[in-house]
Amino acid sequence: MAQIISQKYIKKTLTLLREKGRDKTNLFIVEGEKFISEIPDGWPVECFIVSAEFAGKHDLNIYESKARVYIAADYQYKKLSDTVTPQGVMAVCAKRAYTLCRVTAENSLLLLCESVTDPGNVGALIRTADAAGAAGVILTRGCADLYSPKVIRASAGSLFHLPCVTDMDAMTAARFLKERGVILAAAHLKGDTIPYNADLSRACCIMIGNEARGLSPELSAQADVLTKIPMIGKAESLNAAAAGSVLLYEAVRQRLL
Amino acid sequence: MAQIISQKYIKKTLTLLREKGRDKTNLFIVEGEKFISEIPDGWPVECFIVSAEFAGKHDLNIYESKARVYIAADYQYKKLSDTVTPQGVMAVCAKRAYTLCRVTAENSLLLLCESVTDPGNVGALIRTADAAGAAGVILTRGCADLYSPKVIRASAGSLFHLPCVTDMDAMTAARFLKERGVILAAAHLKGDTIPYNADLSRACCIMIGNEARGLSPELSAQADVLTKIPMIGKAESLNAAAAGSVLLYEAVRQRLL
Repeated sequence: MAQIISQKYIKKTLTLLREKGRDKTNLFIVEGEKFISEIPDGWPVECFIVSAEFAGKHDLNIYESKARVYIAADYQYKKLSDTVTPQGVMAVCAKRAYTLCRVTAENSLLLLCESVTDPGNVGALIRTADAAGAAGVILTRGCADLYSPKVIRASAGSLFHLPCVTDMDAMTAARFLKERGVILAAAHLKGDTIPYNADLSRACCIMIGNEARGLSPELSAQADVLTKIPMIGKAESLNAAAAGSVLLYEAVRQRLL
Repeated sequence: MAQIISQKYIKKTLTLLREKGRDKTNLFIVEGEKFISEIPDGWPVECFIVSAEFAGKHDLNIYESKARVYIAADYQYKKLSDTVTPQGVMAVCAKRAYTLCRVTAENSLLLLCESVTDPGNVGALIRTADAAGAAGVILTRGCADLYSPKVIRASAGSLFHLPCVTDMDAMTAARFLKERGVILAAAHLKGDTIPYNADLSRACCIMIGNEARGLSPELSAQADVLTKIPMIGKAESLNAAAAGSVLLYEAVRQRLL
């Protein structure tokens, strides 16, 4: 049966709105029926928190069958919610740690984000990587926190669909992938190869750099190919998520045809 | 010579932070040295507003040679700024109205956004359209306001690089383009053609729909081809800006090769 949430648990949950709190507890919040429905079976859910209003209107059995359910007063729920229009239901989930071994497979397509700081970009890139059938995503140190509410929303639940390695050292990841024969294909404004001429049909990792600085010189030096997306008009560069989408789907095209 | 800003002008400029104020005055704000540098010669600039701090550190001649310069106290400037870290200089510019005739040219690539409401998406789409060499962008009624600070920032100045038609009726635009032989290529989850099999090498207009609802049935019915971007993984769809980027760059690929 659902029970009234304690002040202590409200305090604990409030800390999850910040990266520090998520790091300390290894927990994060997933809000809304749509995104909660994306949580795969077997992913550890500590509890669900519902607002009194939501509890009055919905059958809670579906949640109670999976984990404890706490009911919060509407004003309490609002405090815990990161959204402008709180949806009335959130799951407190445990983080999952993936290793680099987990994301590399035969002919796999991978995405590495180096210090991509905008949560909307990180989320959109994970969503596109998922759509493109990537085997996994690697986020280096300095990227927006995978478990922040904005990244989760922008990923549209895709962070549950494919393994995402977080907090990686970029050079460690690059060396690991190279040793396993994965082609490192960087998006680079000074690249010498247009994506359509790069071979992205074998095991490869698309590498996208920071929004302002691009890929670091160290990581660029590790790349097997520096691809330059053609800039036909007057724009100097693409948004990081747009660049990643173009390259991931060029890999899809080469693999389909 | 720069002069102290009047309370009256501060009030007027404050209204430009909202769409209603921008519509009434036909003016909008461009903030920051980088974006101001993107304003093309000949684009009407009513004035520049600088903070006292900025005025103390920068040569204002470059601005004074183009339009009047008003100096605002730092606290006044902060109120006028939409950014978290105000940059100290903004331009008050006049809007430019473009017609559909202006954006259609031989073999042109066009982008039409139907009710794309997220300013980040609209800005990123304009930026990608610019990068892809599109001849213009058409925003239907219901899209995020082209002249909102968020769209301008996300476009990275690209709204100055190519004509953007705003507030269009979607069906009027579709009929206009069809009459001129422009292929209407819709991004559609129920499409029957993958983008790599659609002919995007001739005059064509990529059509992207609303983030939640996709393209309207009416506009979809006007499309010459409904393209479905392959969903290889578990994601149901792409972010609107990602979908637009994939299609615009598939058109680039077909035109380059």
